[in-house]
Amino acid sequence: MTDLVTPLSLSPERQSALDVGDLIAGGTFTTVPGTRVGVAQGAIKRAGRDDVLVLVAEGPAAAVTTRSTAAAAPCLWTRARVPGHIRAVVVNSGNANASTGEQGRRDTAAMAQAVADVLGADADAVLVCSTGVIGVPMPMERVLPAVRSAAGDLGTDGHRAARAILTTDLVEKEAACRVGGVTVGGIAKGSGMIHPNMGTMLGFVATDAIVSPDALQALTERVTDRTFNAVTVDGDMSTNDTLIVQSTGLGVRCEPGTPAFADLETALERVCRHLARAIAKDGEGASHLLTLIIEGCEGDATAREAARAVGRSPLVKTAIHGRDANWGRIVGALGAAGVPGLEQLDLDLAGIPVLRAGRPLRFDENAARVALTEFEVRIHARLPGPGFGVAWACDLTNDYIRINADYRS
Amino acid sequence: MTDLVTPLSLSPERQSALDVGDLIAGGTFTTVPGTRVGVAQGAIKRAGRDDVLVLVAEGPAAAVTTRSTAAAAPCLWTRARVPGHIRAVVVNSGNANASTGEQGRRDTAAMAQAVADVLGADADAVLVCSTGVIGVPMPMERVLPAVRSAAGDLGTDGHRAARAILTTDLVEKEAACRVGGVTVGGIAKGSGMIHPNMGTMLGFVATDAIVSPDALQALTERVTDRTFNAVTVDGDMSTNDTLIVQSTGLGVRCEPGTPAFADLETALERVCRHLARAIAKDGEGASHLLTLIIEGCEGDATAREAARAVGRSPLVKTAIHGRDANWGRIVGALGAAGVPGLEQLDLDLAGIPVLRAGRPLRFDENAARVALTEFEVRIHARLPGPGFGVAWACDLTNDYIRINADYRS
Repeated sequence: MTDLVTPLSLSPERQSALDVGDLIAGGTFTTVPGTRVGVAQGAIKRAGRDDVLVLVAEGPAAAVTTRSTAAAAPCLWTRARVPGHIRAVVVNSGNANASTGEQGRRDTAAMAQAVADVLGADADAVLVCSTGVIGVPMPMERVLPAVRSAAGDLGTDGHRAARAILTTDLVEKEAACRVGGVTVGGIAKGSGMIHPNMGTMLGFVATDAIVSPDALQALTERVTDRTFNAVTVDGDMSTNDTLIVQSTGLGVRCEPGTPAFADLETALERVCRHLARAIAKDGEGASHLLTLIIEGCEGDATAREAARAVGRSPLVKTAIHGRDANWGRIVGALGAAGVPGLEQLDLDLAGIPVLRAGRPLRFDENAARVALTEFEVRIHARLPGPGFGVAWACDLTNDYIRINADYRS
Repeated sequence: MTDLVTPLSLSPERQSALDVGDLIAGGTFTTVPGTRVGVAQGAIKRAGRDDVLVLVAEGPAAAVTTRSTAAAAPCLWTRARVPGHIRAVVVNSGNANASTGEQGRRDTAAMAQAVADVLGADADAVLVCSTGVIGVPMPMERVLPAVRSAAGDLGTDGHRAARAILTTDLVEKEAACRVGGVTVGGIAKGSGMIHPNMGTMLGFVATDAIVSPDALQALTERVTDRTFNAVTVDGDMSTNDTLIVQSTGLGVRCEPGTPAFADLETALERVCRHLARAIAKDGEGASHLLTLIIEGCEGDATAREAARAVGRSPLVKTAIHGRDANWGRIVGALGAAGVPGLEQLDLDLAGIPVLRAGRPLRFDENAARVALTEFEVRIHARLPGPGFGVAWACDLTNDYIRINADYRS
């Protein structure tokens, strides 16, 4: 016997916060006019794979870096140079250059200088990102030749660039879209960073918009809160998390407050949302993508925090993995996060109404088990209050343990 | 080639915060004069096991309950009646009576009333605790007869009482000690509650000390911070977490500020520390007990929070499970928690110095792997600052996933 209750639905405006719109098929960083990339093999962790990448997009750049007090040398370098006019970004995988002290700072500067030498630029116009093992000195005797090689062999193979930054990721993460006259494209890396984890997330996004460094920085921070930060919490950031947005200035002028700037914001948000979701989907060992929707709480920030709290609960994540419609664990996670008004909670799990006004509904457990075989599982909670927040996470599986107990990252 | 560095050591005073001193062999709740217990089978979740417990200790009582906004009906009941003079506590496992609305509140009151009827007491002198599945109405037609049966068959079999409150726990958790003229004894339940989890922790402790309800309440809160709260964080509390301390008043008078009260505090802290460590040891799927020691930070509270942050990092927990001396993950967890001064960090892992003044040391990876075969692994960090904090956690294993994906709790 089941209670006949209509599932919760979202207003079109709120639904748009979940969508990525029409992406450009095969789109990536180099879809944006004026961008070039170069890759090389530095054998930083192991030989035979691309592990050094140079991204060239000359113009204003913005960045958001980890707030960890153990932030790695490349994050400190990048943070000191944005917002500003930038020529290129150099990235390596295999070594995070974190907990490496004064030598690490010198190595970061040397990587920037190596790119600058090849491009005929100033080292201060080159940003640096690293990801990989912590506490091991960079093998500079192999890194520097690879950096020079990548900077000296620029082209438009964005897909190869997307591969070069992966670590435990299973798939490349790329997207591009065009909104009005603005093109945005990007690549990202990250799979171990899923709640409440600390593997590194890196994102590199370009646009052809003509935009000031300061406007681009404010926009980047705002969009990050609704996208990349919805899969990783500040407090859970790694030593190396970095998102860099570069503009080539070959497109239309986008000044804050204009329709063109709104197009830029929409395009940037769609690309970042696609990349953020792709990171959650590719979470280490993931067998489900969790989309967590909270309507209620006093504002969007608290609603988003509540969504993240559910997404990082290991009890929720293991229940979804086990295809168990154990909604009590969701209520428990909301309660532990201090969410008020739970006696009024409406809750749908995988499209199945399980609670209305705090009262458990009777539902078909077998139908729920079938619904939980879908890869994407939506958890939708509605509470008193005007807030609205979305987060993405993945389930917690045996493969997560295997990957992280056996792999030194 | 390894760096020859002396491992970090603790002052005798700080070491005492890790010790439990001499416990009474076979000691438990009923070691305390004046206590009695009764158990019964209510077939609440499954038949054939004790799942109802009544603990009698007449006198002042104190309690600490979950701060979850989804706190279960029995927590709300108990919270409203402490500190105060109490006759008994009734406990059930198999059903949490959480997310059960008005009916849940009525069921809690009925459980208290059933005990009161048998004991000839007032229902307000009976506290209630429940643990188990969330969102399912209590099967009162089976619960109430079992409650009456337990309350009507009181004895001193503390070990049977310790078993009756278990859920996914593998072992009973019991301890008692005597300090000066004060006896303290207790039992606890909890294995899924380990960082950053939300299974329920229950603790029931008795003392023969003559102490006022208010003094006992303040003492209980202080000791909880250094013991049970060092394995569970407020934000991670379940809907049902509860610690109750009852005093029978058959022993010595303990007024705050007197040596006798100091004896009570020492005894209570030792019993609670033993029970808290036992919970961490018995963490779902645990193959290691992690003892996290932070010397530094601005005060004890921030140091304790830093210790908990390391203990809840899944990357640290999986590395220890994999016997991998991957200290970079510990630095990453401290950084993500916002701990300052990491460039000065001294760090030992399983007794092996791995960092001094922020500089990585060379150490024997094979010796580290051998050290990490020990069940108890100590992570000891020293930073600038006067603070000192200890936390306990367990590693994260495949068995955790199996238990929580397959078991509806």
